[in-house]
Amino acid sequence: MLKLNDNFLRLSDSYLFTEINRRTADFQRQNPDKKVIRMGVGDVSLPLTPTVINALHSATQEQADAATFQGYGPEVGYKFLKQAIADNYYALRNIHFDLDEILINDGIASDIANFPEMFSDDAKVLITDPVYPAYLDSNTMAGKEITMLSTTLYPTVSEQINHLKTTGYQPDIIYLCYPNNPTGLALTFAELGQWVEYANKEHAIILFDAAYEAFIQDEDVPHSIFEIEGAKQCAVEFCSFSKSAGFTGLRCGFTVVPKQIADGKLLHNWIRRVCTKYNGAPYIVQRAAEAALSKQGRAEAIENIKYYLQNAIILREGLAEIGLTVKPRQNSPYLWVNVGMPSWDFFDMLLSKYAIVCTPGVGFGKAGEGFVRFSAFANRQLTQEAVERLKNNK
Amino acid sequence: MLKLNDNFLRLSDSYLFTEINRRTADFQRQNPDKKVIRMGVGDVSLPLTPTVINALHSATQEQADAATFQGYGPEVGYKFLKQAIADNYYALRNIHFDLDEILINDGIASDIANFPEMFSDDAKVLITDPVYPAYLDSNTMAGKEITMLSTTLYPTVSEQINHLKTTGYQPDIIYLCYPNNPTGLALTFAELGQWVEYANKEHAIILFDAAYEAFIQDEDVPHSIFEIEGAKQCAVEFCSFSKSAGFTGLRCGFTVVPKQIADGKLLHNWIRRVCTKYNGAPYIVQRAAEAALSKQGRAEAIENIKYYLQNAIILREGLAEIGLTVKPRQNSPYLWVNVGMPSWDFFDMLLSKYAIVCTPGVGFGKAGEGFVRFSAFANRQLTQEAVERLKNNK
Repeated sequence: MLKLNDNFLRLSDSYLFTEINRRTADFQRQNPDKKVIRMGVGDVSLPLTPTVINALHSATQEQADAATFQGYGPEVGYKFLKQAIADNYYALRNIHFDLDEILINDGIASDIANFPEMFSDDAKVLITDPVYPAYLDSNTMAGKEITMLSTTLYPTVSEQINHLKTTGYQPDIIYLCYPNNPTGLALTFAELGQWVEYANKEHAIILFDAAYEAFIQDEDVPHSIFEIEGAKQCAVEFCSFSKSAGFTGLRCGFTVVPKQIADGKLLHNWIRRVCTKYNGAPYIVQRAAEAALSKQGRAEAIENIKYYLQNAIILREGLAEIGLTVKPRQNSPYLWVNVGMPSWDFFDMLLSKYAIVCTPGVGFGKAGEGFVRFSAFANRQLTQEAVERLKNNK
Repeated sequence: MLKLNDNFLRLSDSYLFTEINRRTADFQRQNPDKKVIRMGVGDVSLPLTPTVINALHSATQEQADAATFQGYGPEVGYKFLKQAIADNYYALRNIHFDLDEILINDGIASDIANFPEMFSDDAKVLITDPVYPAYLDSNTMAGKEITMLSTTLYPTVSEQINHLKTTGYQPDIIYLCYPNNPTGLALTFAELGQWVEYANKEHAIILFDAAYEAFIQDEDVPHSIFEIEGAKQCAVEFCSFSKSAGFTGLRCGFTVVPKQIADGKLLHNWIRRVCTKYNGAPYIVQRAAEAALSKQGRAEAIENIKYYLQNAIILREGLAEIGLTVKPRQNSPYLWVNVGMPSWDFFDMLLSKYAIVCTPGVGFGKAGEGFVRFSAFANRQLTQEAVERLKNNK
């Protein structure tokens, strides 16, 4: 007989961006003459850079000729891309991995949401709140016991860890995303070091989402958790070319599982999982990612990051015009704004009054209530237009 | 503390193709002058066709311009590709689906191996043996109760279903792969109809792997399980462009979950899973898949299929030269050969005597012992060279 996974019943039904799209579409129907500006979604707007485009064309041409055609590749990714990551991403920061420890993915979402499979059913999951919803949803689907830790109530890492110690709660898996989506907060070496120390003491695993590392400007903020001593004993890192090189539509990233964890068992099991349930990222996409890590590719990516960070500054000034002060977050494309009212009420107000779309903070967890997220990923012209609207219609 | 998923301990450790590669590499090291011909792996050798290549270049160019750049797409796939599948794949066979029921994947492997998540832990899984190993491995990782049904002992569908009825075993999930990997056997309308009738009676779900449908030549063999009446009540179908259009390195396919199953709950949950744990296939790849379904794309694909089927005929004649008779399987790129000895012994003999690599049948399940699989996917010249070696060194 049909036996469905009942854990799905525990998921909240309406997905954040679906609801945003529904309300935006309703508004547009009722106001067909208004031009809606979307300042909510975390999708890039700049096209792929010339170096990446050239690599795609060139790899496509290889696929047109039997002599150079590539069929099934290694499920864990091509060596050329693993080597580029080892050399041009990690070694630059004096971090060294065997190529086996680096696995190519199709973006962070799949790997980080599939990673709960690595752990037993009774593994306890800690998720900071607010955060990217896939951690909560994927662990809910897996029926795991989940604890949400409010970073609104406990803003500093010291307070967060003290709270855990005080309540006697001992997590087995800890999700961290820094620079954070949605708050934009980045952790310093000292702060991330506290988490690594705590995880090693508790024998917990940190799943570290580094999606926004390319935005980091501060010297005292690590790009990789492996810049922290002891992290190879407790951390798995998930990275992506989505935000660093505009790959949101191209889909490529990487997952690093250090062999030190559980005498290599976690790495062994993850490789086995990948080889069973995944067939690798497309060859042409892996060539594009390799190009994004070349000297020229990285230089182009940095220009794009600067563009988005400049957008964030423009947007912050605009929000100040309507009395919303935003903490400066110079390591992130996101502005996290305390709006002093329920998130969805502010969303509706901003949409109806300014025809601007933001992302309600409560969509990232209960602790996000009362906040909204603005994104600096729109193009410059739209960002400036949004600011003008805010200024002229206070 | 670290709580690993213990189900991984129950997996057989050495993956089939890893072991093949290891033994082949050993042989090559010991015989550096010998040219090894790989007739084992199910990977295509013909390059992507002109229509697909043009679509890739053209979509890549769109990604180079902000005006046409595509970032995040719908997790479930772009409408243009869903529509092409609805029109040019299903409607041609008089099968009709809402676009919601069709989800774009990155090849069958991921979706079919992730599908066990849809069911409760106590759902009983039936897998025909021999078959593609991912069904067994993914359900083992999920800790599900698995029964293997030997199609060597029970060669016909009637015998298989009778065996189930006799033993009183009632599966909740049934994996079927036809034309079969590795045996090449295809089911007629009447035979697949028996499975659909059985599944509906038992309220079981059939997970139907149609990876090799493009090879079907016989009129009385259905390409899709949905050509069978009643299948929309009990079947999920997994299709791929890998074998039909040479997408093994490009990664694209589709999964169809009919809304009739469990009043739409299975479809609803699957969409929720995809939107949480997947970010969609790359835009440029989906454009390539759309091109593969165009009139010209399909015409080019048919030429490639003919080429591989001709290889199969040449190879069958060659095997006959060394006394191995192979049942004609005109709907498949695979030859499934009873070698009258343990599979790995034959593998080693064939490698050492002819420098030809085949795939040991036991790698597809216990019921595959005593058989090996030959693939017709190598290029014509290598296929002919393999046949010459067999002829000249009996």
